[in-house]
Amino acid sequence: MNSDPKETGEFGLIETLVKRRPPRSSLYRPCRVAAGDDAALLAWLAQPVITTDTQREGVHFRRDWQTPFEIGYKAVSVTLSDLAASFAKPVALFVNLGLPPKLPGAVAEELYDGLGAALKRYGCDLGGGNTSQSSELSLDLFAVGEGQGRMPRRSDAQPGDLLCVTGPLGLARAGLRCLETEETRFPELLKAFKEPEARFDAAEVLRKHRVRCAMDISDGLAGDAGHLARESGVSLEFHLTEEMAGGALAAWCGATGEDPLSYMASGGEEYELLFACNPDTLAAIEAELPGVMCVGRVMARSGSPLSGLPEDASSFEHR
Amino acid sequence: MNSDPKETGEFGLIETLVKRRPPRSSLYRPCRVAAGDDAALLAWLAQPVITTDTQREGVHFRRDWQTPFEIGYKAVSVTLSDLAASFAKPVALFVNLGLPPKLPGAVAEELYDGLGAALKRYGCDLGGGNTSQSSELSLDLFAVGEGQGRMPRRSDAQPGDLLCVTGPLGLARAGLRCLETEETRFPELLKAFKEPEARFDAAEVLRKHRVRCAMDISDGLAGDAGHLARESGVSLEFHLTEEMAGGALAAWCGATGEDPLSYMASGGEEYELLFACNPDTLAAIEAELPGVMCVGRVMARSGSPLSGLPEDASSFEHR
Repeated sequence: MNSDPKETGEFGLIETLVKRRPPRSSLYRPCRVAAGDDAALLAWLAQPVITTDTQREGVHFRRDWQTPFEIGYKAVSVTLSDLAASFAKPVALFVNLGLPPKLPGAVAEELYDGLGAALKRYGCDLGGGNTSQSSELSLDLFAVGEGQGRMPRRSDAQPGDLLCVTGPLGLARAGLRCLETEETRFPELLKAFKEPEARFDAAEVLRKHRVRCAMDISDGLAGDAGHLARESGVSLEFHLTEEMAGGALAAWCGATGEDPLSYMASGGEEYELLFACNPDTLAAIEAELPGVMCVGRVMARSGSPLSGLPEDASSFEHR
Repeated sequence: MNSDPKETGEFGLIETLVKRRPPRSSLYRPCRVAAGDDAALLAWLAQPVITTDTQREGVHFRRDWQTPFEIGYKAVSVTLSDLAASFAKPVALFVNLGLPPKLPGAVAEELYDGLGAALKRYGCDLGGGNTSQSSELSLDLFAVGEGQGRMPRRSDAQPGDLLCVTGPLGLARAGLRCLETEETRFPELLKAFKEPEARFDAAEVLRKHRVRCAMDISDGLAGDAGHLARESGVSLEFHLTEEMAGGALAAWCGATGEDPLSYMASGGEEYELLFACNPDTLAAIEAELPGVMCVGRVMARSGSPLSGLPEDASSFEHR
């Protein structure tokens, strides 16, 4: 890792962030050698689960919409969501920052604060990272987790399973639309876009009930269900209803004439988990996770992989 | 990880690269679940060693100087060098690509080829990655390795140790200068800049001889020795001589009037290993690694941390 102070401009080293990381129990210190040496040495991992994500200004976030704190916090949530979707516990996060030369120091500081707050929220160590000059602000995040038994796969949906999500759909996409239209009356929607949470709590319930097929829906329900259908070799029949729309989405659709079903089906940047399981398992899960909704069922592949979605449903696209 | 094909523009998914990765022995498959699912699951790691690096156009490379193949190959070498410096074996590499919208598909293809060739060279799996739009071409690389016993640290140099490097110094910096001055007569210097190799071979010898203090010199000898001196709480006395300059560096300095000592001391982007050990150990190492050079000695801290370097020696700076 690069620790050349010249590379970090005026923003201080990534070590600034390392120093602020939340104290961990002395019984379990995942980072045995922290940033500063060439590499970080972690405690042994029986099931290392690794994921990576990028958040880039103008593509994934806008500084006129989101504070640096929110950008940092969300970057961690988005990255760790893939660990949650893998039923893995977060161990260490590595962050490469691309910093524009003229970025005010206060912006970098607040970004660090957001990263640090999210790491604390999820009980994840900062392993290290790297900073370099960039024409746009960017974060490349690499997360290391520890798998907890069998890793769920998107290829393991079975005909006869029900298709379910761990919480309300479409809120983040509606929140994005609120930002685009300068609509401020629906803070719950803005919050869903700006401050998503990785659903480790829900993942733990699914894992306990031996759910075999799960993923997050960062590309939106239709997009990610398409991946699931393709990988599992099944067809998915949806039965979304307007009654499934959360209160804020329903209210906003009522005020704007937008179609809630379209937002629920083609939302994006959502970090609820999509999963498939048999009806008995779903009943047991619902008792522990009241927000769970059944949105369709899994059938043997015949004809189209997806049916029952609004015609305009499409995967979320970043610019 | 993001597998939305819309994110990848015309360049195909990172899976293009995954599909091309070198076949591994069926006895040992570090990536048990490859890219495509939300995360990659690796085989268990007793000593997970993690490092990350960034290569960004205009800062770390220039496309008018380096082919896409060279850029991809070097990005892998540079990142894995930190594993070599940690005496760790490469296990899996994750690559986030930032791709400008108008980048020709052939450039991305050739970049992939360079990444793939280097992965094959080092026996490293591709674990997965992520692509997103960016205003400049960039690679963020994240490497997972398996430590091999005690990890060397830059803080473990002892007074009485000799300070050594595993090979010639200053070539890459001279190669960079050749590119800047359009000097084409010294291909060895250009190669040192464009195609550095991570010194896993040398690391294995150092590890076998229980060297406790080692690091790569990506910031140049003076810069990285400064880190070592500070972390170890010692002073370092150098005795560089013009006779230590490699043939190509000496020839180029002869032709241009440049000072070889200055390039040896303040070179950058070098991936030789800097290490400290006692004289008996050095003798044993030299028998197995003929390129090793003793460049100074470690003393108890007194006065300046570094002495005996040319006055202009400074750490290599990227723009």
